[in-house]
Amino acid sequence: MNRFRASAALTKQWDHFDFAVEGPVATVTLNRPEKLNPLTFESYADLRDLLAELPHHEGVRVLVIQGEGKGFCGGGDVNEIIGELIKMKPAELMKFTKMTGDVIRAMRECPIPIITKIQGIAAGAGSVLALASDFRVVGRKGRFAFLFTKVGLSGGDMGAAYLLPRVVGLGRATSLLMLGDTIDAETADRYGLVSQLVDDADLDEAVAALADRLASGPALALSQTKSLLTRELDMSMSASMELDAMTQALLMTTEDHAEFHAAFNAGRTPEWKGQ
Amino acid sequence: MNRFRASAALTKQWDHFDFAVEGPVATVTLNRPEKLNPLTFESYADLRDLLAELPHHEGVRVLVIQGEGKGFCGGGDVNEIIGELIKMKPAELMKFTKMTGDVIRAMRECPIPIITKIQGIAAGAGSVLALASDFRVVGRKGRFAFLFTKVGLSGGDMGAAYLLPRVVGLGRATSLLMLGDTIDAETADRYGLVSQLVDDADLDEAVAALADRLASGPALALSQTKSLLTRELDMSMSASMELDAMTQALLMTTEDHAEFHAAFNAGRTPEWKGQ
Amino acid sequence: MNRFRASAALTKQWDHFDFAVEGPVATVTLNRPEKLNPLTFESYADLRDLLAELPHHEGVRVLVIQGEGKGFCGGGDVNEIIGELIKMKPAELMKFTKMTGDVIRAMRECPIPIITKIQGIAAGAGSVLALASDFRVVGRKGRFAFLFTKVGLSGGDMGAAYLLPRVVGLGRATSLLMLGDTIDAETADRYGLVSQLVDDADLDEAVAALADRLASGPALALSQTKSLLTRELDMSMSASMELDAMTQALLMTTEDHAEFHAAFNAGRTPEWKGQ
Repeated sequence: MNRFRASAALTKQWDHFDFAVEGPVATVTLNRPEKLNPLTFESYADLRDLLAELPHHEGVRVLVIQGEGKGFCGGGDVNEIIGELIKMKPAELMKFTKMTGDVIRAMRECPIPIITKIQGIAAGAGSVLALASDFRVVGRKGRFAFLFTKVGLSGGDMGAAYLLPRVVGLGRATSLLMLGDTIDAETADRYGLVSQLVDDADLDEAVAALADRLASGPALALSQTKSLLTRELDMSMSASMELDAMTQALLMTTEDHAEFHAAFNAGRTPEWKGQ
Repeated sequence: MNRFRASAALTKQWDHFDFAVEGPVATVTLNRPEKLNPLTFESYADLRDLLAELPHHEGVRVLVIQGEGKGFCGGGDVNEIIGELIKMKPAELMKFTKMTGDVIRAMRECPIPIITKIQGIAAGAGSVLALASDFRVVGRKGRFAFLFTKVGLSGGDMGAAYLLPRVVGLGRATSLLMLGDTIDAETADRYGLVSQLVDDADLDEAVAALADRLASGPALALSQTKSLLTRELDMSMSASMELDAMTQALLMTTEDHAEFHAAFNAGRTPEWKGQ
Repeated sequence: MNRFRASAALTKQWDHFDFAVEGPVATVTLNRPEKLNPLTFESYADLRDLLAELPHHEGVRVLVIQGEGKGFCGGGDVNEIIGELIKMKPAELMKFTKMTGDVIRAMRECPIPIITKIQGIAAGAGSVLALASDFRVVGRKGRFAFLFTKVGLSGGDMGAAYLLPRVVGLGRATSLLMLGDTIDAETADRYGLVSQLVDDADLDEAVAALADRLASGPALALSQTKSLLTRELDMSMSASMELDAMTQALLMTTEDHAEFHAAFNAGRTPEWKGQ
């Protein structure tokens, strides 16, 4: 248990997705494959709350988000979500849209690296979940569809208009968000939206290998790297340099850095402790 | 006519380019093909003023900017513009450079999607007009030349040093703006500067098809998507998430969003109203 | 000598790399090829100080940074740097990390264009030196490794978490900085990290040709273009437009701009004076 955890209990049971922890790897599995693993009011809330708790699970070093069946996540279900939304009043609508944004922000601010596995379609909110993760491991059949304008909504859902141009450039982001077309894995890879493109048959193995690699790496260094990548998008060069300098000076005092030096001189592989 | 239009009349006649409105599609045609459709003091001013008025033309949903003949736009004419500029005093020079920047800013802030058609060279100010549009539909013979340093000026003309790195990345933008070299359509496509690359023979049709598609889409959703893409380049993640949440909550109350839901359940195509 | 230089002398001798000036081209050569040209406490300090002085060398128009032997720069030496750092106290560590950041900031803020020549590995601090230069001329055997997490440190060393996403996009930058893997020249080129990819045998010639081209170009225009590219990463669109307008108005009053006009009308090549 994390040192800075006091009265609040960790949630024992997540009802709206499968949640499993095996050693240092936590996995969220969206588990309604018959409907392409739609997000619901409850699964958004559970994702938000899990992301807040997860850093307090002492042993967890990496989070994998995946979907059962042939697709990753088709977004919000048309009748379960949209059908309800069109009846809501502004105050409730805002609570919903702020909650969905909170999920994405929590993903970006979570100190644990996040991998999404994309074996098929990642559409709507599913495409933004993928976009907000640190690593998108994508099979040849993977596809992305930022399809919000196709349902009459803004393409900038849950931070997509902020994140996508910073990943693929403003021109491509404009086409993807305004037109809402589906792109295949190869196109997404060309655009820089894919971290690793693998054959469909090798996808599970590739995700597991990356999760293991991140989990067995220098956790503090990885976590701070993610934090800098996230924060420095919003910082000036000069402020970023200062943050980098302070971060690196602190990390130079860690056991992991000393361990690298000792291991290097002993000709062995470092044993990272994450501290 | 727009609800929030009072005394000011719309301009009846634009003297420095062809302007036509066919249904929801407005088209600006730069029409001095014998000189590669150069921009002049007057055509800059007309572009600025048209972009301010255009959102007040109630039925217009998309703007196409194109040039007659074999090129899109060769930039400012050497003698008509540069010959005059080198005689001007600072106060007048500033008026000119601020006006040209105002054209580009108006393009980015215009609530109407803008397509440029690039059948040949887009050079100097012509390349920045293309850069500032939302969609660049480019034929195989299309070319881009951010040639400002070749005339002894700064490569950051009219916002190019702001926009280009956000479209193609800082490394490629540095080469393009500092060296001023011409790149062909394929290279521009690889860099992410092309929205759609088509055979020269299909270019007009591709532009018309995209214009029709945008014009018949959910206008409010498209317009807000453009607005978010433009504004969130300058916003933090947290502020962007908040803007997205408020935008989406508002759009969830629109007729277009309800229409999507009704059409989906009726198994028909939505009829967008833009409200 | 620069007009605004008063009492301070220029350094006569740089002890920790070779420094040569041939006409307008200054060259820094990291010269410990037997150790892959490691950076040391002293060579960082010398780079910082040289970059501060270089703009005051009146005739210098371009800086080339290169390494002797088969690699560009392998980063900090494990024992000469890391071995010492792990013994230091916070105050000294901060001095070190701030100095290294100052080198990179000085590269970005230096009014002189900087070319790095990458004939082999650019690793750790070497990869960030390359990243911070304006032009990376890379041979087929060139490689980049942002390997900081592999030594237990943050991938955001010396501004890398600020710069790299702005060059290659956030997705690819995340993989490169968190995993620390080596990428080859072709991959780096695909990502937009390479300014010019050339055959190994042609590398020296390509660097010399680019240096000559920049050195014989309109120095003031080139310098201001670099300045705008650097600053506008941290500026809003509206402020960038204003800076562009003022910069361009000033450059329109220069001899170089008038020279372009005269040369154009006389059908000859402009002779740039850099003023």
